[in-house]
Amino acid sequence: MSFNTFGHLFRVTTWGESHGPALGATVDGVPPGVPVDAAQIQHWLDRRKPGQNKFTTQRQEPDQVRILSGTFEGLSTGTPIQLMIENTDQRSKDYGDIAKSFRPGHADITYYQKYGLRDYRGGGRSSARETAARVAAGGLARAALAQLAPDLRISGYMVQVGPHAIDRARFDAAEIERNPFWCPDAEMAAFWSGYLDDLRLSHNSVGAVIEVVASGVPAGLGAPIYGKLDSDLASAMMSINAVKAVEIGEGMAAAALTGVENADEIRFGPNGPEYLTNHAGGILGGISTGQDVVVRFAVKPTSSILTPRRTITTAGDEIDLITKGRHDPCVGIRAVPVGEAMMACVLLDHLLMDRGQTGGVRGQIG
Amino acid sequence: MSFNTFGHLFRVTTWGESHGPALGATVDGVPPGVPVDAAQIQHWLDRRKPGQNKFTTQRQEPDQVRILSGTFEGLSTGTPIQLMIENTDQRSKDYGDIAKSFRPGHADITYYQKYGLRDYRGGGRSSARETAARVAAGGLARAALAQLAPDLRISGYMVQVGPHAIDRARFDAAEIERNPFWCPDAEMAAFWSGYLDDLRLSHNSVGAVIEVVASGVPAGLGAPIYGKLDSDLASAMMSINAVKAVEIGEGMAAAALTGVENADEIRFGPNGPEYLTNHAGGILGGISTGQDVVVRFAVKPTSSILTPRRTITTAGDEIDLITKGRHDPCVGIRAVPVGEAMMACVLLDHLLMDRGQTGGVRGQIG
Amino acid sequence: MSFNTFGHLFRVTTWGESHGPALGATVDGVPPGVPVDAAQIQHWLDRRKPGQNKFTTQRQEPDQVRILSGTFEGLSTGTPIQLMIENTDQRSKDYGDIAKSFRPGHADITYYQKYGLRDYRGGGRSSARETAARVAAGGLARAALAQLAPDLRISGYMVQVGPHAIDRARFDAAEIERNPFWCPDAEMAAFWSGYLDDLRLSHNSVGAVIEVVASGVPAGLGAPIYGKLDSDLASAMMSINAVKAVEIGEGMAAAALTGVENADEIRFGPNGPEYLTNHAGGILGGISTGQDVVVRFAVKPTSSILTPRRTITTAGDEIDLITKGRHDPCVGIRAVPVGEAMMACVLLDHLLMDRGQTGGVRGQIG
Amino acid sequence: MSFNTFGHLFRVTTWGESHGPALGATVDGVPPGVPVDAAQIQHWLDRRKPGQNKFTTQRQEPDQVRILSGTFEGLSTGTPIQLMIENTDQRSKDYGDIAKSFRPGHADITYYQKYGLRDYRGGGRSSARETAARVAAGGLARAALAQLAPDLRISGYMVQVGPHAIDRARFDAAEIERNPFWCPDAEMAAFWSGYLDDLRLSHNSVGAVIEVVASGVPAGLGAPIYGKLDSDLASAMMSINAVKAVEIGEGMAAAALTGVENADEIRFGPNGPEYLTNHAGGILGGISTGQDVVVRFAVKPTSSILTPRRTITTAGDEIDLITKGRHDPCVGIRAVPVGEAMMACVLLDHLLMDRGQTGGVRGQIG
Repeated sequence: MSFNTFGHLFRVTTWGESHGPALGATVDGVPPGVPVDAAQIQHWLDRRKPGQNKFTTQRQEPDQVRILSGTFEGLSTGTPIQLMIENTDQRSKDYGDIAKSFRPGHADITYYQKYGLRDYRGGGRSSARETAARVAAGGLARAALAQLAPDLRISGYMVQVGPHAIDRARFDAAEIERNPFWCPDAEMAAFWSGYLDDLRLSHNSVGAVIEVVASGVPAGLGAPIYGKLDSDLASAMMSINAVKAVEIGEGMAAAALTGVENADEIRFGPNGPEYLTNHAGGILGGISTGQDVVVRFAVKPTSSILTPRRTITTAGDEIDLITKGRHDPCVGIRAVPVGEAMMACVLLDHLLMDRGQTGGVRGQIG
Repeated sequence: MSFNTFGHLFRVTTWGESHGPALGATVDGVPPGVPVDAAQIQHWLDRRKPGQNKFTTQRQEPDQVRILSGTFEGLSTGTPIQLMIENTDQRSKDYGDIAKSFRPGHADITYYQKYGLRDYRGGGRSSARETAARVAAGGLARAALAQLAPDLRISGYMVQVGPHAIDRARFDAAEIERNPFWCPDAEMAAFWSGYLDDLRLSHNSVGAVIEVVASGVPAGLGAPIYGKLDSDLASAMMSINAVKAVEIGEGMAAAALTGVENADEIRFGPNGPEYLTNHAGGILGGISTGQDVVVRFAVKPTSSILTPRRTITTAGDEIDLITKGRHDPCVGIRAVPVGEAMMACVLLDHLLMDRGQTGGVRGQIG
Repeated sequence: MSFNTFGHLFRVTTWGESHGPALGATVDGVPPGVPVDAAQIQHWLDRRKPGQNKFTTQRQEPDQVRILSGTFEGLSTGTPIQLMIENTDQRSKDYGDIAKSFRPGHADITYYQKYGLRDYRGGGRSSARETAARVAAGGLARAALAQLAPDLRISGYMVQVGPHAIDRARFDAAEIERNPFWCPDAEMAAFWSGYLDDLRLSHNSVGAVIEVVASGVPAGLGAPIYGKLDSDLASAMMSINAVKAVEIGEGMAAAALTGVENADEIRFGPNGPEYLTNHAGGILGGISTGQDVVVRFAVKPTSSILTPRRTITTAGDEIDLITKGRHDPCVGIRAVPVGEAMMACVLLDHLLMDRGQTGGVRGQIG
Repeated sequence: MSFNTFGHLFRVTTWGESHGPALGATVDGVPPGVPVDAAQIQHWLDRRKPGQNKFTTQRQEPDQVRILSGTFEGLSTGTPIQLMIENTDQRSKDYGDIAKSFRPGHADITYYQKYGLRDYRGGGRSSARETAARVAAGGLARAALAQLAPDLRISGYMVQVGPHAIDRARFDAAEIERNPFWCPDAEMAAFWSGYLDDLRLSHNSVGAVIEVVASGVPAGLGAPIYGKLDSDLASAMMSINAVKAVEIGEGMAAAALTGVENADEIRFGPNGPEYLTNHAGGILGGISTGQDVVVRFAVKPTSSILTPRRTITTAGDEIDLITKGRHDPCVGIRAVPVGEAMMACVLLDHLLMDRGQTGGVRGQIG
C-alpha cells in the first residue's frame, strides 16, 4: 500500500520522483479567503533549495513553484491547491551504476523488495527531493496560520552536528539566518564549518539534531487519544527522510528526571496561566498548553558517501559500492526548513479541527 | 471543509477549476507493475471530450493528459501518479456577466454562501470539467483491473433521455459506440437526436438516465457495513455533477416488488453458483455476488439554458437571467464515460481492500 | 476488509451481531457540553423497536441502551460515547436449519464467500438488527444538533408500500405518529394495513419507499467534491439493509424534466434568498441551500418469506428453502427511524466540518 | 475534535474513562478465521494489570475482558470485535480535591481549556487506564499475527530507569519475566528496586526508557511516504501516556555517527540478504528490511507525587498541590506491555495493507 497523504482536515498529498518531470503537493483543506501567491511560497522553497553552499548537494534546481489550482484573484477558494515544481537538473546518467545495486542505508533495497521494481534515478520517490513539496505545502500552511493565529511563529535551527552540540548560553535567534547551518550559536557554526569540510574531504558524512519551536500556539490544540498534537508531530517529523528519533520537550532526557524536577508548575501571569518551566514542550495529554511547542529530531548521516561500503546486487552478487553523485555531507542541514514546514502543517491541521474550515455561512447576499 | 479525495486504498484526489491553468488527478494506491501510458488514458478522455458533436458543449479542449509521476519505464511504481490536463480554450470573458449573479440550478449560490468567494469562471471547481480528471483516473483503474481481474468489463450507456426510455428488447451493445448518445437502442438514438435538436432550438434542456454495468466482477467485493460496494457506488455516482438519484439492480422499482418476485433464486451452473435472476444488481449485503453489477443514475437537465429564469445577485437584486455559454442540451451524455470511470475506481478500490496492494515481498534478490 | 465506521468528524462505529451478547455504537466526535442521557436515546430506539405490531418482526427485544463512556454529570465530554444494547431474545435455535444453506436475497452467500465463515444466527452482522445501533447514534446526533442548529427538524415517513403510493394532497404530518407505517396519509395507511395482512397470509412480502426531510438546515453544509452532502446521504442511506436506490429532491424523475421546469428560481423573502421550488432537494453542487433537504430511498421486499425459493447449500446441494423466523412482511417500516438517524448523523457531521468541534478554547480559568 | 481511532486497515477505537462504568476497544479489521478467545487476551491484560507489586499503582482492578462481538465458534468473523473491561475499584472519592485544581504535568488543564468541562475522576479519559484497552487490542493483533507471520516475536523491556541504564553486556532475555521491571539485566533490576523504593519514600517519581523489539518481521512492510512504518510507530508510541520521545534503531545517537559508521552493510546469508549491523532499527525509507524492528521510547516521571507543587485552580487561585491517590512511582513500568501492544497493532496493520484482509474469495461452495 502507498500512503502519500498526511493531515486530517488540512491534507497534503505529495507526489513526484527525484528525476521525473515534476513533483508537487496537492493541498486540500486550505480555508477560503487566505492570500496565496507563488512568490510567498517561493520564499520558503528558496530557503530549502539545494546548491546554495558547499555543505549541501551541488544539484542546481531552481525549484520554481507554480500554483495550478485553488486560488482566484489572489485568494484561496477552499478548493484543492496544486503546487507543482518542475525538475530541471536531473542528470540521470549519474545513477546508472546503482540501477542494479543497493546503496547501504538507502531505501533501494526495501523499495525493490516491496514493489518489485523501483525508479532508481536519484532514489526516485524515496529521495529527499520529495521534501521540496512539503516545504511548498508548509508555505501555504503558514499563510493560513497568519490569518487564524497571527501571533504564531515557527523557528527551526540546528542544535547538533555529529557529537558537537550548540551552547544554549550562546543562543542568538538572529544568528540563525546568518550561517549555512541555521545555527543559533555563531561560534559553533564556525566550528561546524571546518568539521564538515574535513568530513567531506575524508569521504564521510555525519548526522545532526534539529529543533523546531512554535511560539504563540493557542492552548487547546490536539485531538486525544490518537490524534494527539505530539503524536501527530512525531509522525510528521519521523516521516522526513533519514530521521531516526523525535523528542517533545525534554525528550529522551525526561527518563532521567524525577517527578519533582519535571513538574511544570503553574502560576498566573498577566495573560492568564503561566508555566514556570517547559519540560513538557508545550503539550500535556496531547493538547497544547499555550507555551512554546518544542520538537527535536535526529537525522542520520547521509548514506551516500565516497567511501566504499559492502552491499549486494539484484543479481545476487556481493560488491563494494561507492555512491557517487551530488550529495550533502550533512543532510540534516536541509531538514531544517522541512521540519518547520511539518510543524506549520500539523498546527494548522489541529487549528482547523478545533475551529472548522469555513466557520459557517461566509458569503452574505444583499 | 473541502474533501476532494475518494476511495479507501485506491485514492483519487482531483484538483483544478474550469478556467484555471490546469486540472488533474493525484492517484495514490495504484499497485506496482501495472503498464501505464498516456495514450491509454487518453483513449478514455477522448470519449468524454467536449465539442465532439452538436449535443455536447462546443468548448474545444484537447484534454491532453500528461503523466508527471509514479511510473518508470512504462510501469507503475506504487507511488502517486499525477495526471495533469492543461486548460487551453477558456474564454473567461463569456462568464463576466455571472460574476455577481447566481445561475439557478448551479452551485454558484451555495459556493458563495459557504466560502464567501468563488471562482465564477465557468463554475470554477463545481464545473463538470472536473469530471475529466475522474475519467483519467478511471483509465488508470482500468489498467490495474486488466491485470487483477482480467475478465472484468465495464460498459456505460444511456437508457433514457427526458421521458423517452430505450426499449430493452432492442438492446444491442454494438450500437453503443455508433451514436453520440452511447445508446444501445439504435431506434431510440435516432429519436433522441431530433428530440434534443428541438429542445436546443427552444432554449431548453433535459435530463437523462445512465446505466453502468460491470461484468466479470469477482464475488466477495464490498466492505460491510459502511463501505458496502453499493454504498460506495452510490456515493461515487451521486458525487457526479447533476446526479439526483442512484439505483442498484431494481432500484426504485424494488419497492413495488413482492418477496416472491424479488428473490434471486440460486442453482448451480458449470462454474459454480448461478443466479436465475439479478434483481439485486449483483450485490447482496453490500458484497458482490459474482453477477453483473448494475448501477443506474439520473442526471438532471442542464441548468444553463437560454430561457430567462428568475434569480438574485450578490448585491441583493432580483433579476431574470439567461445563461449564455457553450453548454450541453443534455449533460447526461457526457456523464456516461464518467459513470464508467467511477465504476472502475470503486471496483479496483474494493479489489485492493480484499487482496492488498503489494501482495507481500515482490522483488526477488539473487 | 471490514469497514464499520461512517462519518468524517462525527464518526460512528457500529459493532455486534444479531445473536451475540450485545451490539452497539462507538460514537466519536460528539462536541463537548451536549446534554446526553439514556432516556433520550431510548426514545428513538423505542420508535424502531421490533415487535410493536403485527407488521414488524415478532422478536421481542427491549433494546435498552446503556451509556458506558463519554459523559460526565449528564454532559458529553468530547470523548467517545459507547452505546451498548444487550441482546436478550435471541432464539438461536430458529436458525439452525440455515446454517448450511443460503437464503436467497440475503447476505448469507456473500459473507460466506468473502469471509469463509459466518455467524449464521439471524444473519449475524448482516442482520437489520445492526440498525438499532444507528438509531442510538442518531439520538446522540440529534442531541448535538439541538444545540448547534436548534431550528433543524428531521421527519421520516413511508410514501409507498408495494405499488401503492400516498396521495401528496392528503399529506398530514400529524398522521405520521398515528399509524404503524409512519404514513402521512391516513387513508393510504388504512389501505396498507389490509394489503400487508393479505401479503403476510400469502407468505409474501413487499418493498417500500421512505422519505426523510430535514428542515431548518443551515445553508453551506457539504464538502465538495467527494464529501458532497448528497453524496454522503446517498452512501448513508444505501448502507441501510435492503436499500436499493436513493433519490435527492426529484430523484429519478429529474431525468424526465426539462431545464425550464427543473430550475429552482430564486427571489428574496423576508429572511434572505427564497427558492420558488425545490426540485433540487435542498442541495446544489453538493452544498445545502437552506431549503428542506429531501431524501427518498427504496427498500426491497423482505427476503425471508414462507414461500419456498430455490437455493443451494455450502455442501453443493440444490434445495428449496422456506425461511422461518420472525420477520417483517415489509422491512421498510422499521427503516423509517433508521433513515432519520442517518440524516441526523450526516447533517451533524457536516455541521462540525464547517464549524469545528470545540470552537477553540472553551474552558475559562479565573 | 476527538480522534480515538488508530490504524489504517486494522483500526482500533478505544473508549472509556478511568472511573466510568467500563472501557474498551472496538477493533475493526481483524481478518476472518483467526482463533480468538478471552483467555488469550486476558493473558496480555494480566501482564499490564495494576496492583501487582509495590512499584505500580495499588488500584486493584481485575481487568476482566469480555468479547461482545465479532467472533463465532471461537473464530473471528471479519466483523468488529468489541472488547469490554468493566471498572470495579473506582474510589472516586479520592479525586474530589482535584475537581477544581489542575495537577501539574497532567492533562487536567488542557482538557479543561479545550473542552470546557472534564471528567476529573482519575484523569477521566486522559488516565493511563486507557492503555488497558490498547493491550486488549494488542492481544487480538498478536492472534492475527500468529497466523499471518508465525515467526514474528515481540518483546518489550525497560532499559533505563532515571539515569540508570542497563548494561547491554548483561542482557538476558530470560530475565525479563523474572523481575517487576521487565528488565533484561538482573543486576540492574536489583538496583532499580532499591532506587525506586527510595524515590517513593521521598515522595518522588522518575522516568524510564522502554525498548520494544520485533523479530521475524517480513521485509516490505511500510507505506511511504506518510504511512512509513517508523512514522506509524512514532505516532503509536508517542500516543502512550507520558511518552516524550521515540527512537528507531540508533535514535538520537544517530546524530553523532558518521556515514561510514552508520552504514548497515549488506552481504548474503543462508536465507538471503543479511545486514552486518542494524543501526537503522530494521527500517529503511519507511519500509521494513527483515531485520529486527527496534523502537525505544522515553516515559516522563509520574506527575502525581506527594511532594507539593505549585499550581492554579479553575476559580483563579494559586495553590500548592499534593496529588494523593494510588500512583506508580515509575509509570514507565506499566508502559512495557503497552509498547508491545502498539508494536503488534502497527505491524499487523501494515501486514494487512500489503496483503489485504480477506485475500479474495475464501468460502468454497460444493
